[in-house]
Amino acid sequence: MLLLGSIEFRDEDVTCAVGDGHVKIIDKVEFPLTDPKTTLGNVIRYFQKFDDVKAIGVSSFGPLELRNYSSKYGYILDSSRPQWSNVNLLGTLKQYLKVPISFTTDVNSTAYGEYITSVLANHPVLSLVYITISKGVGAGIVNDGELIGYQGSPEIGHIYPERHPDDQTFKGTCPYQGDCLEGLVAEPAFEARFGKSYKEISMFEPIWDIVAYYIAQSAIQATLLMRPQKIILGGDIVNEVELQKIKQQFQKLLNNYVDVGPIDDYLVAPSNSSRKLSIIGNLSLAKKEFYSASDVTIE
Amino acid sequence: MLLLGSIEFRDEDVTCAVGDGHVKIIDKVEFPLTDPKTTLGNVIRYFQKFDDVKAIGVSSFGPLELRNYSSKYGYILDSSRPQWSNVNLLGTLKQYLKVPISFTTDVNSTAYGEYITSVLANHPVLSLVYITISKGVGAGIVNDGELIGYQGSPEIGHIYPERHPDDQTFKGTCPYQGDCLEGLVAEPAFEARFGKSYKEISMFEPIWDIVAYYIAQSAIQATLLMRPQKIILGGDIVNEVELQKIKQQFQKLLNNYVDVGPIDDYLVAPSNSSRKLSIIGNLSLAKKEFYSASDVTIE
Repeated sequence: MLLLGSIEFRDEDVTCAVGDGHVKIIDKVEFPLTDPKTTLGNVIRYFQKFDDVKAIGVSSFGPLELRNYSSKYGYILDSSRPQWSNVNLLGTLKQYLKVPISFTTDVNSTAYGEYITSVLANHPVLSLVYITISKGVGAGIVNDGELIGYQGSPEIGHIYPERHPDDQTFKGTCPYQGDCLEGLVAEPAFEARFGKSYKEISMFEPIWDIVAYYIAQSAIQATLLMRPQKIILGGDIVNEVELQKIKQQFQKLLNNYVDVGPIDDYLVAPSNSSRKLSIIGNLSLAKKEFYSASDVTIE
Repeated sequence: MLLLGSIEFRDEDVTCAVGDGHVKIIDKVEFPLTDPKTTLGNVIRYFQKFDDVKAIGVSSFGPLELRNYSSKYGYILDSSRPQWSNVNLLGTLKQYLKVPISFTTDVNSTAYGEYITSVLANHPVLSLVYITISKGVGAGIVNDGELIGYQGSPEIGHIYPERHPDDQTFKGTCPYQGDCLEGLVAEPAFEARFGKSYKEISMFEPIWDIVAYYIAQSAIQATLLMRPQKIILGGDIVNEVELQKIKQQFQKLLNNYVDVGPIDDYLVAPSNSSRKLSIIGNLSLAKKEFYSASDVTIE
């Protein structure tokens, strides 16, 4: 049986998992994210117990260097987590684990997990955009079954939406750009606007319509640029009520300019938790890495 | 020798060409675009002279039905050219020419022509966004050497840019959306603003900075969503002076948030006329169609 590994570095923890060639999860463990030495030590010791794992998929918070022609390929770059800046994640893991390892962002692995889930369910969604909105805004895009992004992963959080008529003065919280999408709709924007967490803001407050207006614009842009089969909206900010608001704004803004099919099939919530999807994605990317690295020919 | 065909339907004419498997053009002719019966008659009679053409690439102005599962696949849909609405372009050509025929938009074939040109020059640009701004705004996107768009071709003209501080009142000319990108920067927008053609407006007029600001936003969005290797800006509106203005605005807006490499290699003019690129694209797409339709296996 082909054994594959998944490692996902998240805000507060790292999840290691082992699965089979059908991406069925066999074992799973979580370690807290502390300093790189301790955390990577835990990860490496975990996988050293599985000496028949043939390839591993790694995903991480960013910013990551994904360009495989860069001398810093596989690094976490200038991270907001001080100890995690300029860390050679991929190089360290390769040095100790000695198997082929794929490397991508947390949102890319999640998006790829959605794609694989659809394939396993016999309803393949070959072209999808996955947008997640929590502490930041991330995106992963699958086109014809492959993640896109030649120079890095999609950065849809840094588009500039048109400001809502009732929201003209808030400057936004993005340290780089101010009122880009992320600066207007992610968790810190709620804290800056209200001095408290988004969780404490009733869904009847008008801010949720304003936020839906901005998120809908990102879905419009993704629609018009990519013409995908499906857009998946995840993350803590996009709860069930908010998703409905986004759908309404999306239809109003698109004004039927292009046909996207039934809206409830087009703008959807994730099919599973992002943790689960990310493991599925990483195991699948590991499998690809294994076959592209080996001499085995698949029909 | 493998012979391939290209047919491109444009505003005022249709170009037919025959080329070889290396996309070298062997013969070429242009017919005026009149009514469908006359125009398609000319096209069909031209290709009937080449009974060894093995496949043809067709590209056309839109809107086109590109979804091959639609009953109207291959049609020109609700065109602004009245006689050309609801015309079964692909079906008619297939009926008379009896070879495999690929079908895509005029901008897609041009974008694909840029990709093929880069491959033939031994500097493959595997991931590119081609945006053209003339009477309308069109886009074609190549990712990993394939055109993207599951539900149709990219419609970047219909994104909403953030309005320029000195351009708050103009309502835009898009009949669907008003002040979308196309409604703000395409030729009709100049006519609506000034009562004359864009050609009569000096490049020292501030409108060109305003237009550059809007076009730069579309390049930003394409950059952040696709992370391509290159963005090509073509069409009558983007002359040499305007391209420099767009580059400046692009750099200001992006504020180094992501690395795109040297700006002069990233935001570029087309490598050839759009007519030439489109023929190269169509011949290449015809070649793909030929090999995917035949039993020949390519190593």
